[in-house]
Amino acid sequence: MSKKKQFVEKVTPMEENFAQWYTDVVKQAGLVDYGQVRGTMIIKPYGYAIWENIRDELDRKFKETGHSNVAFPLFIPESLLQKEKDHVEGFAPEVAWVTHGGDEELAERIAVRPTSEVLFCEYYSKNIHSYRDLPMLYNQWANVVRWEKTTRPFLRSSEFHWQEGHTAHATAEDASEETERMLGIYADLTEKYLAIPVIRGRKTEKEKFAGAKYTLTIESLMHDGRALQSATSHHFGPEFAKAFDITYLDENGDTQFVHQTSWGLSTRIMGALIMVHGDNRGLVVPPRIAPTQAIILPIAQHKEGVLDKAYDLRDQLKDIVRIDIDASDKTPGWKFNESEMKGIPVRIEMGPRDIEKDQVVLVRRDTGEKEFVPLNELKERLPNVLEEVQQNLYNKALAHRDSKTSTATTMEEFNQTLDENPGFIKAMWCGDVACEEKIKEETQATSRCIPFEQEKVADTCVCCGKEAKEMIYWARAY
Amino acid sequence: MSKKKQFVEKVTPMEENFAQWYTDVVKQAGLVDYGQVRGTMIIKPYGYAIWENIRDELDRKFKETGHSNVAFPLFIPESLLQKEKDHVEGFAPEVAWVTHGGDEELAERIAVRPTSEVLFCEYYSKNIHSYRDLPMLYNQWANVVRWEKTTRPFLRSSEFHWQEGHTAHATAEDASEETERMLGIYADLTEKYLAIPVIRGRKTEKEKFAGAKYTLTIESLMHDGRALQSATSHHFGPEFAKAFDITYLDENGDTQFVHQTSWGLSTRIMGALIMVHGDNRGLVVPPRIAPTQAIILPIAQHKEGVLDKAYDLRDQLKDIVRIDIDASDKTPGWKFNESEMKGIPVRIEMGPRDIEKDQVVLVRRDTGEKEFVPLNELKERLPNVLEEVQQNLYNKALAHRDSKTSTATTMEEFNQTLDENPGFIKAMWCGDVACEEKIKEETQATSRCIPFEQEKVADTCVCCGKEAKEMIYWARAY
Repeated sequence: MSKKKQFVEKVTPMEENFAQWYTDVVKQAGLVDYGQVRGTMIIKPYGYAIWENIRDELDRKFKETGHSNVAFPLFIPESLLQKEKDHVEGFAPEVAWVTHGGDEELAERIAVRPTSEVLFCEYYSKNIHSYRDLPMLYNQWANVVRWEKTTRPFLRSSEFHWQEGHTAHATAEDASEETERMLGIYADLTEKYLAIPVIRGRKTEKEKFAGAKYTLTIESLMHDGRALQSATSHHFGPEFAKAFDITYLDENGDTQFVHQTSWGLSTRIMGALIMVHGDNRGLVVPPRIAPTQAIILPIAQHKEGVLDKAYDLRDQLKDIVRIDIDASDKTPGWKFNESEMKGIPVRIEMGPRDIEKDQVVLVRRDTGEKEFVPLNELKERLPNVLEEVQQNLYNKALAHRDSKTSTATTMEEFNQTLDENPGFIKAMWCGDVACEEKIKEETQATSRCIPFEQEKVADTCVCCGKEAKEMIYWARAY
Repeated sequence: MSKKKQFVEKVTPMEENFAQWYTDVVKQAGLVDYGQVRGTMIIKPYGYAIWENIRDELDRKFKETGHSNVAFPLFIPESLLQKEKDHVEGFAPEVAWVTHGGDEELAERIAVRPTSEVLFCEYYSKNIHSYRDLPMLYNQWANVVRWEKTTRPFLRSSEFHWQEGHTAHATAEDASEETERMLGIYADLTEKYLAIPVIRGRKTEKEKFAGAKYTLTIESLMHDGRALQSATSHHFGPEFAKAFDITYLDENGDTQFVHQTSWGLSTRIMGALIMVHGDNRGLVVPPRIAPTQAIILPIAQHKEGVLDKAYDLRDQLKDIVRIDIDASDKTPGWKFNESEMKGIPVRIEMGPRDIEKDQVVLVRRDTGEKEFVPLNELKERLPNVLEEVQQNLYNKALAHRDSKTSTATTMEEFNQTLDENPGFIKAMWCGDVACEEKIKEETQATSRCIPFEQEKVADTCVCCGKEAKEMIYWARAY
């Protein structure tokens, strides 16, 4: 019975211990369990169903924009990984190494892919010949491994799931357009489906992807005021092409290097979903991404006709919304708590008295508001309520982010803000990595991005006082 | 230009060298390329698109029958893999071992999963408590690694993709039903979608899955007369439950072991697709599984109106069939060859004279038959033609299998048949593993299965002459 009790146990309040609240929600909502090897995770049915919805939506957008799915190998020979210097330096410390196949010791160590740039580059070097072969627009849904010291479900796990797009283009401009296009798709998914507002921008040199010319990012803000990098899109220029000799003959018959991009969104985004919308009753899932958008909870279901009516209702609504019914023998209170813990956007209560009055009670997960709806209006009303929940979640998250976004013009102000109202800090920067490193060391806040939408909040660098070049979003981050 | 030329190069005729024909088709149809690590493969866009269609169809059936998708870890600690004796003996020789994370040597070796029974068992032992928790019906789409000595794309690769279902049930009967249900789903997919007839049966003790009580299988026959195990479904009984202590309280409050199953279908099935339907012009893809069911090839496309009409036609048909258009500047002959190599079921030719007559030419990939179809009948005719192709491919494969299925009552006959008309051999068996091993050693033919549909082709064992128990399908196999 221990397994069922968890749903009536309360989660640790987030105000008391945010990290524990997160772990409680992840476990009690049935998203994840721990694997046997340190830092690995088991994504359980409910967690995987949410990820599938994210995946399907992204996959649809990738295909619409001309990308093809492929499956590249899990394994990379050590020598191949070492072909691009910056890249291997960035990843080698966290590679899991295969050294034996069966009883046989391998002649060369094999990396379990931490990311797949080098595999795609090797392929492109063999398969791209002419300008007619470009652009080559590949994506894969895959698992990757990074041997992390400290791990947390979704946020930082030894193995995680993601998609990684890898593309090759004739010109730097084409690659730039792709880099921006894919960031736009990520931003759209995150804002319109996950109801999470994002800051779009470019990473600093220090924070960019190992081997990239530049990295674009979308950054979101969690409930505790910490930021989370939600997806990134990298422009490699011709650097990988030079290391891997990826050339093509242009229309004049001249040999040119290709310009490449890569871009990824991972199961980390599930962490954002939890930490942006969740509350002390558990998860809150935005309707557009919810495996179950509405759940029918029959009241006094032992009474004649109640269950029949509930199933009828389910059948009437199932082509309009993703709907489920809890006809188990748990108590109504238990069912309420369970549906709240799982963050199902709307619950539909239906008991003998409701049936008499030809109505149901709709209860919104986000606000707790109750509404009596006549049965004959439900088909019209329910989708509207779901849309209201979706919009409200986004608006709440945006208001929260705004309330947690400050500006600082001095380090004193910077530190004080981090103490009093932790969140995004907008501050000017001189462009010197020394200042960036100093701020990180002193405050544990990192530069999240140089936002596309610049504001001039001061004339001088928040750290050194010299002339400022750009505004940066700073935050302590996951 | 070398890349494009491949489409006008011919494949090695299968009569000349079947293995080379297979490799040629795999490469020239754009299905697979070789990875950097021995035996790994890169599944290219066209190959992956076919696999996605297989996956989506199976996934739909799994969900309809109450299964949930999950994602279990890639990594298994060595000690966990060793928990079930028969199982580890079966898999240990072909495990890829991770021994280092970054610079650190691991305290315990980690197996890259060759299959995931032990991970699911460990999970079930913690998460199953009561009869109310049963059945637990999980599936995952995953990559697994088996360190094989000799490898071939799709047929035997170090890393392959598959789905593995893992279920736990209250009773042996429930587990039996599940084992059979899933075999039925595989047989349906293979026969109705892939147009490949299968023999349903049970593996012998010698050939069953390591750790299983029994293994059900579907076996198909390739063009060269060799068999291919196309999917398997295993009944474990309570053996894993005993090794992993997976118990539940039944309705009387008594502790019981669960009964488990697992079942899988892998990218190997792509090999069957190629070797059952392919011919000397390349791949032939059954319409129900084809990423492109019909391709429009405009003739004399430089002439005014041709391309416009071709695009119009594509737009009219795109909601009815999966249709593409080749409007590139390749020659018509090149386009024909390419569409044939890729095995697109129907090509639609459309030139100025066809446009004048308000007609198109349909050409079937399977038979080469041409048919003039008036434009206003195409919407009705095209789906019917696709259905005819689908049926014809199945019928051809069935006729081929029948012509390659013989009976043998003596070893002399057995050997002679294998020489003269290699394929399935139906022969009686006494049930003694010694005979099974002797036949394998002498003929390289293995017992493919004990078919559900038994025939008594003789009274005595084909090998030892003692009283026969069962009829077996024998074949040399991939």
